[in-house]
Amino acid sequence: MKSLHRKELLTVKWRRNAVQIIDQTKLPNRLVYLTCKDHHDIAKAIRSLVVRGAPAIGICAALALLLVTINSKAKTEKGLKSELERASRLLISTRPTAVNISWAVKRILQISSKGESVKEIKRLVKEEALTMLDDDILTNRKMGRAGSDLIYDGDVVMTHCNAGSLATATYGTALGVLRAAREDGKNLKVIATETRPVMQGSRLTAFELMHDDFDVRLISDTSVGYVMANRMVDKVIVGADRILRTGHVYNKIGTYQIAIMAYTHKIPFYVAAPISTFDLKSSISDIKIEDRSPDEITKIKNIFIAPKGIHTINPAFDITPPNLITGIVTEVGLLEPPFHRSIGTIINRSKRY
Amino acid sequence: MKSLHRKELLTVKWRRNAVQIIDQTKLPNRLVYLTCKDHHDIAKAIRSLVVRGAPAIGICAALALLLVTINSKAKTEKGLKSELERASRLLISTRPTAVNISWAVKRILQISSKGESVKEIKRLVKEEALTMLDDDILTNRKMGRAGSDLIYDGDVVMTHCNAGSLATATYGTALGVLRAAREDGKNLKVIATETRPVMQGSRLTAFELMHDDFDVRLISDTSVGYVMANRMVDKVIVGADRILRTGHVYNKIGTYQIAIMAYTHKIPFYVAAPISTFDLKSSISDIKIEDRSPDEITKIKNIFIAPKGIHTINPAFDITPPNLITGIVTEVGLLEPPFHRSIGTIINRSKRY
Repeated sequence: MKSLHRKELLTVKWRRNAVQIIDQTKLPNRLVYLTCKDHHDIAKAIRSLVVRGAPAIGICAALALLLVTINSKAKTEKGLKSELERASRLLISTRPTAVNISWAVKRILQISSKGESVKEIKRLVKEEALTMLDDDILTNRKMGRAGSDLIYDGDVVMTHCNAGSLATATYGTALGVLRAAREDGKNLKVIATETRPVMQGSRLTAFELMHDDFDVRLISDTSVGYVMANRMVDKVIVGADRILRTGHVYNKIGTYQIAIMAYTHKIPFYVAAPISTFDLKSSISDIKIEDRSPDEITKIKNIFIAPKGIHTINPAFDITPPNLITGIVTEVGLLEPPFHRSIGTIINRSKRY
Repeated sequence: MKSLHRKELLTVKWRRNAVQIIDQTKLPNRLVYLTCKDHHDIAKAIRSLVVRGAPAIGICAALALLLVTINSKAKTEKGLKSELERASRLLISTRPTAVNISWAVKRILQISSKGESVKEIKRLVKEEALTMLDDDILTNRKMGRAGSDLIYDGDVVMTHCNAGSLATATYGTALGVLRAAREDGKNLKVIATETRPVMQGSRLTAFELMHDDFDVRLISDTSVGYVMANRMVDKVIVGADRILRTGHVYNKIGTYQIAIMAYTHKIPFYVAAPISTFDLKSSISDIKIEDRSPDEITKIKNIFIAPKGIHTINPAFDITPPNLITGIVTEVGLLEPPFHRSIGTIINRSKRY
């Protein structure tokens, strides 16, 4: 593996039996790490969006279970397993729409079930959680390679929310594709949408891309149609929080409407997501979309930017149907329509699921 | 004319040889009036968005020229006219995209050209400017009547930006239609988009509709597609800053993409605008779209919400093509497609243009 770029942002780190996470609520003004010493700290960090991004919160959930085993005073294998299960339920409840927490928790619980003593469980969980952290970076680099060919020299690429280093352990999914394309010597420019209400675009993507010397322009979410109509965008690439067998993509609120506009303006629309994001079992009616607090819309820091007491509709995610998607980049290759076929095939081929 | 509702917001008032304007940059937290004593005060208020909304800034421009005549020390008719012309150029330069300032200034210059003495010019301008202020309210009420039938009992209506009392002297254009529908006894709900970057939706529309006891919900601009896909919206109605003979509508950035989504989801999309908004002479290539300061996107009050120095694309307006528009409500009736025909006909019938 190529050594990390000197300046590369490490979003999630394992240091001295604790998890260090970049506190994304402080960005773009301050780059500070929060140290989490137990799974409650991590659950709180996920819930309050200190860390977000489907792959990153998956990794954090795995590391949270590692902390459970380290902090546990359980004398029996059964006692430790029940602690792990209780912590798993807590972690899954923090962000019900993203599948990666369930995926990570399941992987850890599976491995722990093989342990026949407290000591062995602790060892297995540690090995698995730290492998998942390393794998995330490898996966993103493979995804980058798989998607790099989609980006042409001179392209202007729009992205929404943050599917970058800050959404993963490092390197990113959608932004990983852009990093790989740049490593291949292509010039490219990025248009980042602000991504209200939580502004992952302006706070995180703009920050991260400036940090890595990309040519990036920020637009408000209302300008997407304008820049497309004025032919200022060649491609769109976004991440995903969950992808169904049918190719329906759950991602940050606003993704669906960008896909509609890309379709209207005949602009290719790509999704980049690791295999861990695919949920082959659920259908749309099974998935709850979080309706988050009005505070996200009505306040910035402590300033009211809307009348106090106003009612809101504040879904965290939306669903982009497969007919609006040009391709899905994964670490095992590019999936093309019809997705109900390509998704089944590639997932079966992948041993990691 | 029906007496004003006790609580009705008066956005622009003429009091004791000064113009009083609600300072919209202070909303929704404080309802305060700014007193403008000369045309420079008004130009500054328009430029800094203390007052905005196509009809309101038209009225303010007319009243600014009235202030020129009141403050003038000109001894000759020629001197006063040249002062008026200089002030007119300043006023037009404040917001180049909205046609209403040009329209208002032209009306005042035309009437002043008929004056044969300083005293007569002063009288004529005063009469005309104050008539324009009164007419704005009458026009909005007529527009409300003309559009009320489009709203059905139980409708949920989405609006973007602020085309309400706060965009006019009072009552509003798009929101005037909703007020008229409610006066006709219809129950309706409103979904207001936040309207980044300047947040006229959350700061102004949400404030104004709560002030008038409407059932209003605020959404971020990223949720438009979601609420439409989930059948939570029956109709869209917006205002306009300029409408061309072809039916192309210039309005607040984000309008175009809402129109695309309404079209995709088969939701009727209406525009409400007075005849003063129509520009029959220009074509698209003639109209400059303001690219406003990055500060609007990167800062809220004095808090940075994006990295310092980030480049932005920040157009103030976009263009919605006629094929996405179901109808245009004016004070002289509803215009239907094909707009290149209906606009010509109705404007010719109207004596006010």
